[in-house]
Amino acid sequence: MERLDDDYPMQTINNNDKGSGKTFLVHNRSGSLLAELEGQGVMKRNDHYIPVPGEEKATDFGNTKDGCDGKHNQCDFILLGSLSSDEAAPGQKQGPTFKDGRRRVDYVLTYHIQKPQSVRRNTSRFSGSRVLRSLRQTLSLSKSPAMPPPKIDPEIAAQEHRLDYHEDDKRFRQNEFEDNLREMGLELEKDEGNKIPGIGFVKIHAPWNVLCREAEFMKLKMPTRKVYEVKQGSNLVEKINLFIHKVTEPLHPKVESNKPQNVKPLSYPFSREKQHLFDLSDRESFFDSKTRASIVSTRSASVMRITSLLGNGVYTAAYPLHDVGFDNISLLSPQLLYEEWASYSVFYKYQPIGLIRKYFGDKIGLYFAWLGIYTQMLIPAAIVGVIVFLYGCATVDDNIPSMEICDPRNNITMCPMCDRACSYWKLREACGTARASHLFDNPATVFFSIFMALWAAMFMEHWKRRQMRLNYIWDLTGFEEEEDHRRAEYELRVMKKTLKKQHKQRLPLNKKYQSKRDTALPYCNSLTPHTSSHLYKSHRQRLRRLLTPLQVSVTFAIVFGVILYRISIRAALHMSSNPSNIRATVKGTAAVINLIVIIIMDEVYGALARWLTLLEIPKTDKSFEERLIFKTFVLKFVNAFTPIVYLAFFRGRLDLFYFPDDLFTTKRDTCAHAGCLMELCIQLCITMLGKQLIQNNLFEIIIPKIKKLIRRRKSDMDSQQQEDYNLTLQRYEKDHFLGPFEGLSPEYMEMIIQFGMVTLFVASFPLAPLFALLNNIIEIRLDAKKFVTELRRPIAARAKDIGIWYNLLRGLSKVAVIVNAFVISFTSDFIPRLVYQYMYSSDGSMHGFVNHTLSYFNVTEFQPGTAPLQPLHLGYEVELCRYKDYREPPWSNTPYDLSKEFWAILACRLAFVIVFQNVVMLMSDFVDWLIPDIPKDISMQIHKEKILMVELFMKEEKGKKRLRENHSNQSPVQPRCRPSSQETSNC
Amino acid sequence: MERLDDDYPMQTINNNDKGSGKTFLVHNRSGSLLAELEGQGVMKRNDHYIPVPGEEKATDFGNTKDGCDGKHNQCDFILLGSLSSDEAAPGQKQGPTFKDGRRRVDYVLTYHIQKPQSVRRNTSRFSGSRVLRSLRQTLSLSKSPAMPPPKIDPEIAAQEHRLDYHEDDKRFRQNEFEDNLREMGLELEKDEGNKIPGIGFVKIHAPWNVLCREAEFMKLKMPTRKVYEVKQGSNLVEKINLFIHKVTEPLHPKVESNKPQNVKPLSYPFSREKQHLFDLSDRESFFDSKTRASIVSTRSASVMRITSLLGNGVYTAAYPLHDVGFDNISLLSPQLLYEEWASYSVFYKYQPIGLIRKYFGDKIGLYFAWLGIYTQMLIPAAIVGVIVFLYGCATVDDNIPSMEICDPRNNITMCPMCDRACSYWKLREACGTARASHLFDNPATVFFSIFMALWAAMFMEHWKRRQMRLNYIWDLTGFEEEEDHRRAEYELRVMKKTLKKQHKQRLPLNKKYQSKRDTALPYCNSLTPHTSSHLYKSHRQRLRRLLTPLQVSVTFAIVFGVILYRISIRAALHMSSNPSNIRATVKGTAAVINLIVIIIMDEVYGALARWLTLLEIPKTDKSFEERLIFKTFVLKFVNAFTPIVYLAFFRGRLDLFYFPDDLFTTKRDTCAHAGCLMELCIQLCITMLGKQLIQNNLFEIIIPKIKKLIRRRKSDMDSQQQEDYNLTLQRYEKDHFLGPFEGLSPEYMEMIIQFGMVTLFVASFPLAPLFALLNNIIEIRLDAKKFVTELRRPIAARAKDIGIWYNLLRGLSKVAVIVNAFVISFTSDFIPRLVYQYMYSSDGSMHGFVNHTLSYFNVTEFQPGTAPLQPLHLGYEVELCRYKDYREPPWSNTPYDLSKEFWAILACRLAFVIVFQNVVMLMSDFVDWLIPDIPKDISMQIHKEKILMVELFMKEEKGKKRLRENHSNQSPVQPRCRPSSQETSNC
Repeated sequence: MERLDDDYPMQTINNNDKGSGKTFLVHNRSGSLLAELEGQGVMKRNDHYIPVPGEEKATDFGNTKDGCDGKHNQCDFILLGSLSSDEAAPGQKQGPTFKDGRRRVDYVLTYHIQKPQSVRRNTSRFSGSRVLRSLRQTLSLSKSPAMPPPKIDPEIAAQEHRLDYHEDDKRFRQNEFEDNLREMGLELEKDEGNKIPGIGFVKIHAPWNVLCREAEFMKLKMPTRKVYEVKQGSNLVEKINLFIHKVTEPLHPKVESNKPQNVKPLSYPFSREKQHLFDLSDRESFFDSKTRASIVSTRSASVMRITSLLGNGVYTAAYPLHDVGFDNISLLSPQLLYEEWASYSVFYKYQPIGLIRKYFGDKIGLYFAWLGIYTQMLIPAAIVGVIVFLYGCATVDDNIPSMEICDPRNNITMCPMCDRACSYWKLREACGTARASHLFDNPATVFFSIFMALWAAMFMEHWKRRQMRLNYIWDLTGFEEEEDHRRAEYELRVMKKTLKKQHKQRLPLNKKYQSKRDTALPYCNSLTPHTSSHLYKSHRQRLRRLLTPLQVSVTFAIVFGVILYRISIRAALHMSSNPSNIRATVKGTAAVINLIVIIIMDEVYGALARWLTLLEIPKTDKSFEERLIFKTFVLKFVNAFTPIVYLAFFRGRLDLFYFPDDLFTTKRDTCAHAGCLMELCIQLCITMLGKQLIQNNLFEIIIPKIKKLIRRRKSDMDSQQQEDYNLTLQRYEKDHFLGPFEGLSPEYMEMIIQFGMVTLFVASFPLAPLFALLNNIIEIRLDAKKFVTELRRPIAARAKDIGIWYNLLRGLSKVAVIVNAFVISFTSDFIPRLVYQYMYSSDGSMHGFVNHTLSYFNVTEFQPGTAPLQPLHLGYEVELCRYKDYREPPWSNTPYDLSKEFWAILACRLAFVIVFQNVVMLMSDFVDWLIPDIPKDISMQIHKEKILMVELFMKEEKGKKRLRENHSNQSPVQPRCRPSSQETSNC
Repeated sequence: MERLDDDYPMQTINNNDKGSGKTFLVHNRSGSLLAELEGQGVMKRNDHYIPVPGEEKATDFGNTKDGCDGKHNQCDFILLGSLSSDEAAPGQKQGPTFKDGRRRVDYVLTYHIQKPQSVRRNTSRFSGSRVLRSLRQTLSLSKSPAMPPPKIDPEIAAQEHRLDYHEDDKRFRQNEFEDNLREMGLELEKDEGNKIPGIGFVKIHAPWNVLCREAEFMKLKMPTRKVYEVKQGSNLVEKINLFIHKVTEPLHPKVESNKPQNVKPLSYPFSREKQHLFDLSDRESFFDSKTRASIVSTRSASVMRITSLLGNGVYTAAYPLHDVGFDNISLLSPQLLYEEWASYSVFYKYQPIGLIRKYFGDKIGLYFAWLGIYTQMLIPAAIVGVIVFLYGCATVDDNIPSMEICDPRNNITMCPMCDRACSYWKLREACGTARASHLFDNPATVFFSIFMALWAAMFMEHWKRRQMRLNYIWDLTGFEEEEDHRRAEYELRVMKKTLKKQHKQRLPLNKKYQSKRDTALPYCNSLTPHTSSHLYKSHRQRLRRLLTPLQVSVTFAIVFGVILYRISIRAALHMSSNPSNIRATVKGTAAVINLIVIIIMDEVYGALARWLTLLEIPKTDKSFEERLIFKTFVLKFVNAFTPIVYLAFFRGRLDLFYFPDDLFTTKRDTCAHAGCLMELCIQLCITMLGKQLIQNNLFEIIIPKIKKLIRRRKSDMDSQQQEDYNLTLQRYEKDHFLGPFEGLSPEYMEMIIQFGMVTLFVASFPLAPLFALLNNIIEIRLDAKKFVTELRRPIAARAKDIGIWYNLLRGLSKVAVIVNAFVISFTSDFIPRLVYQYMYSSDGSMHGFVNHTLSYFNVTEFQPGTAPLQPLHLGYEVELCRYKDYREPPWSNTPYDLSKEFWAILACRLAFVIVFQNVVMLMSDFVDWLIPDIPKDISMQIHKEKILMVELFMKEEKGKKRLRENHSNQSPVQPRCRPSSQETSNC
């Protein structure tokens, strides 16, 4: 039991051991305690660690450096070109290695080189006393290098070292971290005399036994020797599949077809006890470079958080290398990827997902697979959308309401659109708008809305199945969620709290605790969940609970403030213009202004979301990421969709609340005659196209180019020099010049917002899927290029699914149903037309519909000061004018009251919403239920794999038993079985 | 690769080996081939099996029998009383064992004993030739005992053995099965000379090594030696928990408190290679009786499907024994369970879930945990429901509409309720109904609906968390879904198809195939998914695809036929009665009749669902169960809720379609004045109470008692004899008299329908949760009694969740939101009242509401033949009468047309539905999102466990390494490492 408490040091401090804290503080008069703590994050001491004496270490460094400088030119490394240019000749089994040319570089850390004297002083100072170290340990802080040994007067020491205090600190922590890595079994090589001045490299190599051990701990599923035949369903199904594959042959990248597809190795979580199962003949390629890097990164994360070291500037970067050399597959990878994936010339092909995953890991593989499926699914949506649009074009001349509007015989006088300045106008003037509106507001739109709702459901299902298939192919079935790492910021916070508490209470640290710390294992380096949460909770919990809703409300206040401001600007723009022809141009400019605001605010909101999430101090990396994504999503979504929502649902509908005094005041921001759908459409079109063009081109192409240019400019070389220089660089040095990988969130976010555009207002803009499709075809190759040539290689992260993004997609497709229901019933004229046709029309046709939608107004009843200044504008005196609304005529008992028709149509609209929402949701659920999440052939093969695995073990079992029976009397075979048990030989 | 094809015998038959099939048929002229196949199901031959020569075996049987007969009385077994009576003295470490008194009985199979000569003949006949056997193997049928060796004329043989053909067959297959079990390492003991005539018992014991091996294959998580401290959150949280626990002390069963709760052993999937981790000092209790039984059952299922053997009558029953003896915990289990769980006197206590699960396994444990949570969650719902009801009672005298109706000054003359027979009546007469309606139709009801929708969401969340907690406590985290067994019926079908195909093609069986079969492993006994599905698909697939929708439509046709019939009967009942006072009694009787119909149809539909599912021939047991549950649920649900739905939404609303000709014809089945809510309430109340009382009492108490009585009557003994006889019985004999366990589906189904009642129409009957609560308190103990005393012990099934039931619950709670929205807006008068108050009322009060809801009718406009026969019934001549509807008065331009008020109210009602549905759904989703699925302390502890596990292994690793280093030069330790690899010592 005692052993188990070793990893709860914080708690123990909390209870008993507060004395040493005081002692510690006495030695730290320089007052930089908290700053130092901040710098050190959550590092803990490994108590089995015995630091190398300072002098020795200094020599060691010197040696490494000299050795490197001296030997560098004669190292027989092959100098490799950049990834985009031709690589080293294939087949040559080499790549970035240590100086010995044998040990492969799996991971690289970079740091700023410090002045040598500082290093020497630092290390020599730190032959520090055992007492001091154990004291520091008790606080579970890593050794603070600025603390002089107790015999030196602390004040003098503090003054002396203030200048290179931070440098020393960094160097010390770097050494400590590296020693820990070595203790874990990793092999390190330092390289400070390289071509890039001021930058030092630490190359890390994971030897075979470390890889084995970690693969076992990580339960990595590896292919065994045993292969089995994969069959996709029955003969017929297989034949059809083969046929389809042949037909689509040109669409497949020339990559995976080389691989025999009918045989799959049985996979099993790697275990050294079961190593006879695996084909370990080629140790170099058993774990591929991606796996090796991810093992090193995971292992070092368990020693000490690299991210926190990076954050504190101890290291400047940490990355695995792009692949060149060693095993056959990865030798070809970057080149193949570049040719078959990251090139616009293959835009019509499927992506080589298997290869992408092999090179970049599951998470990125899943992103591109998802993007591929999404793009693929957009094709039918785009086709149907275009057909719907063409149907609108074809029927525009048969549309009775627009014919009636355009008919010069229908001499309808309309009321003025604004106070005083505007005058009466002829309905004929709205002819163009009415005809254009029909393009997007016709019965086919309703069909298309339903189609797209089901399309979204199908897409989600299709993706689930695809994901499941990939999980099977990539051997991710049964893989458990990886450890969730605590964030450094959170732990720091906890630490600060503890310290403050100690400050207050000034209790002596307990000796008992200290002794416990000394036996702590290096594995439990992070604060355990219980302890930290306990400490944290007791202090901040209540405050934080208050903070979160406050934050949310502040966020929304900001967002809505901006929205209101934008709407009022919009209204101002409208008001200043004349009502008739200029309207169209105003709409356009308003949309463009809106677009610019959206793009600017997008960046602002992105920063805001990050800031808010940082304020929250989430506990773990995963929760940080999820919260950040959620916040960013909400803000960006609201930002992108507010003007559209306003146009669709509120514009021209707020007049209900103004009744009856100001029927025709400027407060009314009404749409043109034939519904707001047209304006909505323009807005959507401009937002979508503009956003995609600008964000793609500006942010994803031009800005990175500029950044690269600036980086190059800094190094003060012209292009020729640069090229020559490039040729002399090692792989790890070249990679250092590439941009860092910053996660998939921006890529996903862009796509999700686009998905929103495609599904949410599809009723008003059937061409949205087409635009999205065109954008995505470019987007895929753009992203691919970025990953292959412009970014450092990301650490391969294991993932079974796309995480929170799937939930966001689901949420969006649910919201889409409701939004589309409202767009059809309220924004379009679909329902009023139907109601007219079946309830009011005398002959069941649409003739007279326009007249039916217009109410009468007696011009003598204008409010004072609102009557038009030019009443004779049309050339005759107007007595009654018409306006678009369902209200009682002036001669009824309740003039200008909402009419019975209004209520009937409203009831029908609402009924339509209910029916549409529930029917479509039911259909979506039905689609969900109908299509099994796991494809049949995959579930069969998983079943088969299980049977084969059991069979394999049974066989083994029997073999062992036979062996035992044969040799049972000759020698005691299994030394590990406990002799005390009777039936040992059987287990 | 060749090895892998061994388990695809069917496929190979299909392709090459059809000749032997013909040969086989020649030998089987009796024509019973298919019947035989049917009988044999899917059994396959174990090819390593060499049958014991017949004579030898017969002697063997004789010995066993004689031995048993002779030794029986002197066996020192303890004769145990029945479970409900006092058990053997605790501490006595014994229980049902084999005759040696040492080996424990883990599982029992029973069969009918056959006549001895048949046995002898049978076995002697089966020294059968090797040729024949291999021939039979090629067809992958088990040996057909009716086939005589080729040298005997087959026709004579067939005649000779026709009579005891089936008996022989059974005996043969029994022997084969038992031999297979023995080969698997299980130990069997037969007992035919027992007290129960005609019944033979096969007692199965799983020896230690078999248990170890199977536990490893099943990846059973077992507790290791290592324990760690469990802390629930911070100190404060812990203190609060402790306090709550102390306060609720009397509510906790006196069971688990003995156990130290702060320490939990670390669990790890059992592995013989890691056996040093586990505390194997007490082998008898390391695997508890439940686990042992489940291992035996799983193992035997992999040899041959017990269910198919049971179905064919080879065995009559298969069950593990109720626990008495051996280890401490299980020794106490049944008695403790009986006292602390299966007794009405502890109805107020929590259930001892841990104990239940320990005894009955995860699946049953989860059911009772779920039932417990549900019952617990019903308490607040019941309280709020009662408060809402009391609020209704308290405000009944302040309710203006009912006051207006009851006010004698309001002298409103109402139109007749039916043609001719009815006359005009005074609104005052409806006073009682109006007052009663207010009890259930008041603003509090709306609040209660929302409350219950959120309650349902909370319940789902609460259960998810509870389930997660139980998963953690029961070490189910990371447990993979168990093998899904193919159904015997399905495989039989496949077999038949194959045979028919062979028949047709008449191709000779290939020798190659035969040789392959001979090397097949016993493990791959079931047809692999691929093969069977392939065969099946090619034949029936298209037909079946057509069948399923056909089935569904037929089902629904039946259901709706019954519904229509019931509605028409209902209408007839109404029509024959007089309109006024008798109405209430009619309502009551109609509801009772309805109830009876529901209960009868419930049984019918249950059978129908089973039949339909059988028609479908689902592939696996799991899919069979799910389909059956789904069908049963749909049918029973529709059955129970149709009359309620009709009452709530259709009654009195169909008149929209009759207008304007027959406003007052008998076709209108309207409710009483103050809404249909009252009638709905009566219907719900009677259905719920009646269903629960009758189903609980009749089906769950009385019928089992009667069955028991009949079973006892059959044995021709009086009660004294019976008791004496009981005392002489062994445990396994006693258990044979108990009822078989038939799955949890009926229990769940009952509860789900109740959940539907509680949530779906809660707006109309706020007392539903109370009734449900009372019912469940009884239900829990009733079920408990049944499981402990009346049923054979079920095989412990592993399960992580409650499966499809959770989805049904989710579905119901979603539907509940919509239904409640409609009930509030359409069935109750809530919306009309609101609309009146805010749109029409002159002073903002409800005064005049009643008048507002009544339209005018001019009595001169009655359709011919519909005017009342007694127009002067009220004592004065009526000119205008009133009726409840929103229609234009006779003096308007469009008399009797729907009025503007109607449309306005309709629009408001629909708007309310939209708002209610979306707001409540959003709130539910919010609750879902707010409450994490995994409780914080559990996720912390899971995290902690992982860390501890890694730590443990690292320690071990280091220990090993040290050991190796010390002894590396003395002796080569690890014999299993391959000498070829260089770094062997490290892996």
